[in-house]
Amino acid sequence: MSDFPLRVIPLGGVGEIGKNLMVLEYDQQILIIDVGLMFPDGDMPGIDLVYPDITYLTARADRVQAVILTHGHEDHIGALPYLLKYLDVPVYATRLTRGLAEVKLREAGLLADAELHTITPDDVLHFGPFQVEFFHVCHSIPDAVGVAVTTPIGVVVYASDYKFDQHPVDGRLTDVAKLQALGDRGVLLLLSDSTNADTEGFTPSEQRVSEVLDEIVGQATGRVVIATFASNISRIQQVIHAARRHGRRVGVVGRSMVNNVRMAIQMGYLDIAPEDLLTTSEMNNLPRDEVVIVCTGSQGEPTAVLARLASDEHPQLQIIPGDTVILSATPIPGNEEMVNRIVDDLFRLGADVIYSDLCDVHVSGHGSREDHKMMISLVRPRFFVPMHGEYRHLVLHARTAQAMGIPPENIVIVESGQVVEVGPRAIRVGERVSEGHVLVDGLSIGELGAAVLRDRQHLARDGFLVAIVARNPATGEVVTDPEILTRGFVYVAEADDLIEGAKDRMWEVLKMPATGSSIRNKIKEVLSQYCYARTGRRPLILPLVLDV
Amino acid sequence: MSDFPLRVIPLGGVGEIGKNLMVLEYDQQILIIDVGLMFPDGDMPGIDLVYPDITYLTARADRVQAVILTHGHEDHIGALPYLLKYLDVPVYATRLTRGLAEVKLREAGLLADAELHTITPDDVLHFGPFQVEFFHVCHSIPDAVGVAVTTPIGVVVYASDYKFDQHPVDGRLTDVAKLQALGDRGVLLLLSDSTNADTEGFTPSEQRVSEVLDEIVGQATGRVVIATFASNISRIQQVIHAARRHGRRVGVVGRSMVNNVRMAIQMGYLDIAPEDLLTTSEMNNLPRDEVVIVCTGSQGEPTAVLARLASDEHPQLQIIPGDTVILSATPIPGNEEMVNRIVDDLFRLGADVIYSDLCDVHVSGHGSREDHKMMISLVRPRFFVPMHGEYRHLVLHARTAQAMGIPPENIVIVESGQVVEVGPRAIRVGERVSEGHVLVDGLSIGELGAAVLRDRQHLARDGFLVAIVARNPATGEVVTDPEILTRGFVYVAEADDLIEGAKDRMWEVLKMPATGSSIRNKIKEVLSQYCYARTGRRPLILPLVLDV
Repeated sequence: MSDFPLRVIPLGGVGEIGKNLMVLEYDQQILIIDVGLMFPDGDMPGIDLVYPDITYLTARADRVQAVILTHGHEDHIGALPYLLKYLDVPVYATRLTRGLAEVKLREAGLLADAELHTITPDDVLHFGPFQVEFFHVCHSIPDAVGVAVTTPIGVVVYASDYKFDQHPVDGRLTDVAKLQALGDRGVLLLLSDSTNADTEGFTPSEQRVSEVLDEIVGQATGRVVIATFASNISRIQQVIHAARRHGRRVGVVGRSMVNNVRMAIQMGYLDIAPEDLLTTSEMNNLPRDEVVIVCTGSQGEPTAVLARLASDEHPQLQIIPGDTVILSATPIPGNEEMVNRIVDDLFRLGADVIYSDLCDVHVSGHGSREDHKMMISLVRPRFFVPMHGEYRHLVLHARTAQAMGIPPENIVIVESGQVVEVGPRAIRVGERVSEGHVLVDGLSIGELGAAVLRDRQHLARDGFLVAIVARNPATGEVVTDPEILTRGFVYVAEADDLIEGAKDRMWEVLKMPATGSSIRNKIKEVLSQYCYARTGRRPLILPLVLDV
Repeated sequence: MSDFPLRVIPLGGVGEIGKNLMVLEYDQQILIIDVGLMFPDGDMPGIDLVYPDITYLTARADRVQAVILTHGHEDHIGALPYLLKYLDVPVYATRLTRGLAEVKLREAGLLADAELHTITPDDVLHFGPFQVEFFHVCHSIPDAVGVAVTTPIGVVVYASDYKFDQHPVDGRLTDVAKLQALGDRGVLLLLSDSTNADTEGFTPSEQRVSEVLDEIVGQATGRVVIATFASNISRIQQVIHAARRHGRRVGVVGRSMVNNVRMAIQMGYLDIAPEDLLTTSEMNNLPRDEVVIVCTGSQGEPTAVLARLASDEHPQLQIIPGDTVILSATPIPGNEEMVNRIVDDLFRLGADVIYSDLCDVHVSGHGSREDHKMMISLVRPRFFVPMHGEYRHLVLHARTAQAMGIPPENIVIVESGQVVEVGPRAIRVGERVSEGHVLVDGLSIGELGAAVLRDRQHLARDGFLVAIVARNPATGEVVTDPEILTRGFVYVAEADDLIEGAKDRMWEVLKMPATGSSIRNKIKEVLSQYCYARTGRRPLILPLVLDV
């Protein structure tokens, strides 16, 4: 047997490492924890979504034993339909998580063929060399669990997303006793969420938001509109409670949120009767101080409800002066500008807008430094690998672990797609098996190369210019005037002179004796210089010599 | 005389209103306060800078009496060369501000022809109907002033950027006595900075940063690299002091910062001898615990020093493991992703990075709500117009003013380019004279229309596809195979099949009887449908039928 028989491979994430999918491999048997997706970075124009790169798994399809889902957020279950298109593998999840996964699989037409199992945190499952147990964790969605996997060389604890909320909305605490018991048994490796590694203290309880909501809803004289994540079931529950306390009723707007709420009510995860939810007509016609509206779009997503309210383009709802709008989320880096613009536009429409800079209308679902320390104290692992965070968060989390007494040689930091090799006595960084993620653009997944993204960035900056001329290939005679097509470079209607100048430059090149490709190169070179000299810009230049 | 003889027009700003240039107009005489520039928003791809739209001024060139500069930051003086190309008008500024303006004018080759005057806060100037006085304000640069303009109908106070720092780095307090005296005389209108209108309390003293810098520099064992704004002279002074206290010397890297520091030293605004500054060779070769490096790039600007250090591409300097890097600035919305990437890369290179989420290594130069209240209490204006901030900040600042007792009908909120009409008894919003700003792209200023920006956004998302065919116009006979050029849409080397399919679709269109423009439209329609059906994307499609 190798000295390092256990392999751990984090996949997914853009910037964030191992955010979406974790691979455990032992004796050629594979266990998958979570199959989520992410949204693209600002430097990925036109990209719709980012999936984990599953080629490592599809190439070893017969070895994959099971998929475990830790909770129902997009970044943990969103790519499940994609995975199940390629792998025929059973999926294990708690009730709510399974319900949310089923919504996704149904939409993708894959539900009938999927093998889903409901688990509870008390279950113990066996897959090849892996014995899998669960422990309940607090997060911004109910029914979230962490996973403890006993392998022949020791126990691996995957903490997933968690915080030690001492007063959670659903009353269920993170299972400290079970974590302590795992620690007592002895844990080989802890993989732990680093999202808030740069934040001091414990993350506040989700109940903090209740107090603030209570105050805002209590003071509002018009309608209250609250935007949050569609899957933030705990937050939606708090809104329902706050509304009730102030004699208001709640309506839900936004497809994904309506679906999630309907499912959560059915399964008993939301304390409201379906018939108590407001219809759109009631939202518009009831006395304004009886209405609370929960909607999507807290991250400024251009097609979600909040953005459409802000631009006054929602088909059923309009902002009425005197409405109070609450953005119950902190903008993810890259979304701030969009969110700010929406806040400005809502103010322009006469709403009173309460956003994160003004007051605590959001609390993170992820633990901070003291939560991290508590997890380490309970689990007392031999080896530690910080996960779920950008590189700086992993470094800071690793420092915390070291400060807690884990020797530096027992801590490794890896990037997504890189193997962590684990033995009973040592841990090390192995090879890199992939880039970690693939880009989804329209119908294509992973086909879009870096070259296309670079072209898009170039086009966004300076546009393009296509220069076309038709020649008789036998005589070399030019048979048409040169043509120029350009977009994103100059305002064509006002740039006749510039375009005519470019055509003149082409004529000069065409007078020289030359063959096809050298003419093309020469045209490109001359036009590049010409465009830069005239405008200071460098459009993407494509010459075409048509043989007629 | 009109009931509203005084006109105030804020110009400039992207999102932020009246950020860069303020026009005061009375009896057809014009006074300009500040001529700054801004950097583009994320939805302005390829745009280099944003200038205030000065067409209102150039159309009234003979009426412009003077330009007053309140301080030397880019957003207050950066567009001065642009203005002086069109207007022959004297410029008044304090010593340091004038020095910084001269650097700009010299670079633009305009210094010899410019008429510059040095003022002190005690001066009183007269321009037509305007009597102009100044009051010193604390900001993140020395020698900053606010302006009080006495017009025939009353006094207008333009507070510019300010905070009530009780312990400023240069020891010069905001001139409370003069503000109080202005209030006693009676102020008609206050125009006041709203940047931090969503922040409670007083903005902390710039000295807060000194304490933090002191601690970090004192504890560092390697070199300390500090990135900040090139014009943040106060911050640079604090770094010099902190270094000195810990037996270190300071070097400056980055063209704009080197120029500013050299000028500030010459004029006596920085307490360091030029020969005490480290050379690049000393930064690399002195014992590491004797070196502090101040550099540009705190906003993640891709071509500034910090980004080049992070990507290990700086020609003279490399990060050495053990270096401590401090980002002494808060990222402006839209820059967070770039800044985060730089922080991650610096950690990857082995540096210890201290950024704003971790500790107070930056303090705003702008006042918060209590500063705003203090300004209003001192000046006690009849009318109030919040300035310098995005729309939400103006609304919040207006609320503060109302809470301070200014009646709502005496407060107006305008957008950039919109006229505020002021009379002795009333204030109102007038017409809109411009969009407020123009876009600078390469060598062109203000020529780039919304259409070009929309094309760029479209190209960034989905790329383009040019479809070309040559026909004999007399017979309608197609004389070449269709050609397709595409970029940013699909990875061409792997999309042969897609391109061939597009050509087939073109052949089908070409078989139909039709004239030039209807063929073009038909090709566009068919290819749009085809591309969307095959890829889920909508590239910009440009058909060209070449008559040969």
